[in-house]
Amino acid sequence: MEKTIAVLPGDGIGPEVTEAAVKVLKSIAMRYGHTFHWNFAAIGGAAVDEFGSPLPKETVEACEASDAILLGAVGGPKWDNNPAEQRPEKGLLNIRKHFDLFANVRPVKAVPALLGSSPLKEEIAREVDMVIVRELTGGLYFGEPKRHNENSAVDTLVYTRVEIERIVDQAFEMARSRRGKLASVDKANVLESSKLWRKVVEERKAGYPDVEVEHMLVDSAAMKLITNPRAFDVVVTENMFGDILSDEASVITGSLGMLPSASIRSDGFGLYEPVHGSAPDIAGQNKANPSAAMLSAAMMLRQSFGMDSEASAIEEAVMSVLDDGYCTGDLSACGNKVISTERFVEKVIEEL
Amino acid sequence: MEKTIAVLPGDGIGPEVTEAAVKVLKSIAMRYGHTFHWNFAAIGGAAVDEFGSPLPKETVEACEASDAILLGAVGGPKWDNNPAEQRPEKGLLNIRKHFDLFANVRPVKAVPALLGSSPLKEEIAREVDMVIVRELTGGLYFGEPKRHNENSAVDTLVYTRVEIERIVDQAFEMARSRRGKLASVDKANVLESSKLWRKVVEERKAGYPDVEVEHMLVDSAAMKLITNPRAFDVVVTENMFGDILSDEASVITGSLGMLPSASIRSDGFGLYEPVHGSAPDIAGQNKANPSAAMLSAAMMLRQSFGMDSEASAIEEAVMSVLDDGYCTGDLSACGNKVISTERFVEKVIEEL
Ligand SMILES: CC(C)[C@H](C(=O)O)[C@@H](O)C(=O)O
Ligand SMILES: CC(C)[C@H](C(=O)O)[C@@H](O)C(=O)O
Repeated sequence: MEKTIAVLPGDGIGPEVTEAAVKVLKSIAMRYGHTFHWNFAAIGGAAVDEFGSPLPKETVEACEASDAILLGAVGGPKWDNNPAEQRPEKGLLNIRKHFDLFANVRPVKAVPALLGSSPLKEEIAREVDMVIVRELTGGLYFGEPKRHNENSAVDTLVYTRVEIERIVDQAFEMARSRRGKLASVDKANVLESSKLWRKVVEERKAGYPDVEVEHMLVDSAAMKLITNPRAFDVVVTENMFGDILSDEASVITGSLGMLPSASIRSDGFGLYEPVHGSAPDIAGQNKANPSAAMLSAAMMLRQSFGMDSEASAIEEAVMSVLDDGYCTGDLSACGNKVISTERFVEKVIEEL
Repeated sequence: MEKTIAVLPGDGIGPEVTEAAVKVLKSIAMRYGHTFHWNFAAIGGAAVDEFGSPLPKETVEACEASDAILLGAVGGPKWDNNPAEQRPEKGLLNIRKHFDLFANVRPVKAVPALLGSSPLKEEIAREVDMVIVRELTGGLYFGEPKRHNENSAVDTLVYTRVEIERIVDQAFEMARSRRGKLASVDKANVLESSKLWRKVVEERKAGYPDVEVEHMLVDSAAMKLITNPRAFDVVVTENMFGDILSDEASVITGSLGMLPSASIRSDGFGLYEPVHGSAPDIAGQNKANPSAAMLSAAMMLRQSFGMDSEASAIEEAVMSVLDDGYCTGDLSACGNKVISTERFVEKVIEEL
């Protein structure tokens, strides 16, 4: 197959880890006879520095001319005091909205070799295997009115039925392809938007008789993610709750440095990025863990290009390097063989 | 001193645990020469059954005629399908709003005897000692417009400067009386209300030079509560974030059954209730843990009545019974001496 991939390295360790992912993808292309074209472009702080905007027109065009987007990370202290429109995160929010990437998909899976670095007791974190499906282009993030002055402030949580239906359907499909369990998280005892949300979930479930649905309040979900995370298979929730719960979930297994994410729309186009941030403190030191970026590339192959075996090959290669006790300097607990980012990439490519 | 206490037992294990707290308070009154008058009244599902409303006029009047409110718990499957205005939680929301109880104060402290039941590794949960101060009468819970129809839904997150100032001041005072650290949690990279919130915190901090303030994004806070909960002293946040984070925090030390809470206003009037819910599954079986209700009574003595030594006496008595290895049947991990709710109360009173 022939595919064009937009690569947006971004800030901090973003460039190192995307470079790693690109190397792995090149190796996959060779091995499986694909041709990948690369559209490198700027985003985040790097784009503010070069173009005066966290999402320059050039970058949007590069992405529009591509079949999928691979992103590193954005943000850093350098831009923390910039005005809102010139902050790195704004690049992320804008690209999500521009491309209508309404479904943020975040798998959280316990990696046996890393359970030692989980803050949870091993018997609780062990075998956790869930996916959080977060609505990404609606709710409090974008609703109007949205403004503040010296004396008051307002944000607006709006959802249309259609926005809820499409994310809920996405989650039902995902649950069907996994263990068939869906937890829909809302705050229906307080929010009107949650009442509509719950109603839509109830309606849609008729179309998925093979999926078992549970409604859960967001406060209960925040507790259960800690006390019994194994109970979750697929979780679906609105934008703001999803932001909080997916970050909470990202630390429970001790494998934050391993977690990929996808932000997709219905036609298969998507943006793939590691969950970890730009980690400016270790940037450029050749010690960032490139696993999450590589696993994001694998997600891209599977979800946007339908390349299942290629994706699995990357996933298995990464796990096998970890199982051999190798890790990069930023992972607190691992086998005792600490190696550089570059060496880690070579090992993964050898495994492929 | 002479004080009048409104007692609202509510649903599930609410009546058992408030009865326990009342017994302890009576014992305190005798020992310290106070006179407590009791205004028993209905709330929640019990009030819906008896009066057709989760917060009847009679109950409001009983509370108005009192110096503080002691509440058990509300809710249960029996009322889950009631219309919104006749659901038990509505009683809670209404009483908060009616009495302007804008500050919800939730201490979370690790109890050494219970660390075994924490989902976190003991070295992480050990010595956790924080207070979450949640804004309780504003934000998404009450903002207008707030409605849904078949095709769309809206909730509104509004805050006035004055609403933010009073809760932030409350939190600064609390930090000053503790370890002098305040984490203000918001989502200032996305929400306008958070920008005003952050501005107010920045302004008020000039008045508290002894308090060290940190701004933290809600998603980071949700992670840090798990990875490094000891780093927190006082946390202050808006209503919805506070709902999620305080429930998340309530499970990290394994002592949910021990956690008290206060919902107060500036003049000292307040409502005190255990953090645990109504636990309908174990109601009436004489096995509920009454500690949180007793510790809520202690909080009431200290915060609403200024009775410091009386409050400490209750707290020490409860801890000493636990340290002796006693616990009720609902606590998963404790010493091996499981006793009934009633027996637990007797033990605490003996210790007093
Ligand atoms: C950077 C920020 C705007 C963003 C969000 O809140 O969506 C981030 O936290 C995320 O989850 O991708
Ligand atoms: C019952 C519900 C309305 C309430 C809230 O969300 O405030 C509860 O979760 C709490 O935290 O006291």
